[in-house]
Amino acid sequence: MIRIAICAPGKRLEQDRADAVRDLLASDDQVELVFHRQCFARHGHFAGDDAARLNAFLECANDPSFDAVWFAMGGYGANRIAAQAIPQLTHAAHSKSYLGYSDNGYLLAALHKAGIGQSVHAPLVGDIRRTGGDRAILRVIDWLKGGTGGLEPSLDSTPAAAFNLTTLAMLVGTELIPDLSGHVVMVEEVSEHLYSVDRLFFHITQHLRGIAGLRLGRISEVPENDRPFGASPEEIARYWCEKGGIPFLGNAEIGHDADNTIVPFGLARSANAE
Amino acid sequence: MIRIAICAPGKRLEQDRADAVRDLLASDDQVELVFHRQCFARHGHFAGDDAARLNAFLECANDPSFDAVWFAMGGYGANRIAAQAIPQLTHAAHSKSYLGYSDNGYLLAALHKAGIGQSVHAPLVGDIRRTGGDRAILRVIDWLKGGTGGLEPSLDSTPAAAFNLTTLAMLVGTELIPDLSGHVVMVEEVSEHLYSVDRLFFHITQHLRGIAGLRLGRISEVPENDRPFGASPEEIARYWCEKGGIPFLGNAEIGHDADNTIVPFGLARSANAE
Repeated sequence: MIRIAICAPGKRLEQDRADAVRDLLASDDQVELVFHRQCFARHGHFAGDDAARLNAFLECANDPSFDAVWFAMGGYGANRIAAQAIPQLTHAAHSKSYLGYSDNGYLLAALHKAGIGQSVHAPLVGDIRRTGGDRAILRVIDWLKGGTGGLEPSLDSTPAAAFNLTTLAMLVGTELIPDLSGHVVMVEEVSEHLYSVDRLFFHITQHLRGIAGLRLGRISEVPENDRPFGASPEEIARYWCEKGGIPFLGNAEIGHDADNTIVPFGLARSANAE
Repeated sequence: MIRIAICAPGKRLEQDRADAVRDLLASDDQVELVFHRQCFARHGHFAGDDAARLNAFLECANDPSFDAVWFAMGGYGANRIAAQAIPQLTHAAHSKSYLGYSDNGYLLAALHKAGIGQSVHAPLVGDIRRTGGDRAILRVIDWLKGGTGGLEPSLDSTPAAAFNLTTLAMLVGTELIPDLSGHVVMVEEVSEHLYSVDRLFFHITQHLRGIAGLRLGRISEVPENDRPFGASPEEIARYWCEKGGIPFLGNAEIGHDADNTIVPFGLARSANAE
């Protein structure tokens, strides 16, 4: 039995999405999902105030009966609790996987930096609402059972990490960022103008010198602008990588979509170590 | 006679704005404006490609017959030419003022870091199109003539610098950022959601430890979101300043509007040194 605790460090989870994930996995007697009630809380922009979100994360992470903590939603807010969370994590937190992406990258980064558990860039619970969202959910479950079919296909013997581009740009140089030297760093973005993507690449490539290389995930739902930017996302990535002396390694199969693959931070394992 | 060279490191200037500024200053025989033709160029998102924008800036800055370089527009693009510009600046560049804000903050930062001339957060040529834009233009001209009425009112004997919040967030930790320790740093923002403002404050306050304090300019044209953020811009600024051990000093009279005041980087002088 794999017991999975679910909490929401940023945005709240809508009940119908939780129900849909429960329904999808109802017949799987190898998996038990436990939704922390904080998933459904609301406080301004967030799924509960900072204290509520921090406490829910700590309750999930520090409970030895859980094998994994799966983040419910992205949105915004994980950076407001990550620094406080790390010193309050206990021994039980070390033997877990932590799964999610987008805004949850702040927590994944901080956990990886602290050497606590296994940070994993992976679909969120709330991705069930996407077209093909079932696939995203089942990809996570399969990985937790030891499957490797959902891993990002370029992963090899080089350590890796994956981030939303804005999240990574806000992480670099802060107390939350792990040492990514020697890592393949993958980035993806959604709903940002290409001039903003260019600006974010300027920033991250200045900070990430020493990484093994960069891979470009999907840059999706780019808003229409009043004038074309004049370069594609790949041209932008190549331009700034070359200026920063960072090897550009090609594409990564990550993004804000149902095909978002799994990137364990550090070295990918071929079978679940739980 | 004050001779002012105008170029556009980011977005192009519309001809009607240039004409309006010329008309406004036509009867002032103490001022001569020279619009570099690059102001009106177009290349994708930019007022000409990187080489054209870089060369125009260098021609303006390195011409000893000019007293000041005034940036035409913001937009995006100054970060793509600032690092290459600095080592190509000659002696003539050192005795000039460089005026602008928003995206031009990358160049103002790099010039201040290099100790070249006087970087000045100030209205742009293109601000003429704003309601009350005449006032913004005349504020710049008055300062260039030695006036002090347009200076940001809180300026005192502490060195200062002022930036657009996103620009500063992209600058911190890069090769372009000057040492701002001991400076009062003022920030303003436009057209960003409050969650984004919060995220940007997280990032800058992690990087700006050691500054004398932070002042909050106007956070304007905040887009409607599907839910309220739950904190005002001042509450956001106070929150992150307190977490970062940075004194929050109150408001600053800067912003994307016609009332945007003048903040010379470093120590403000009470009269023009030209």
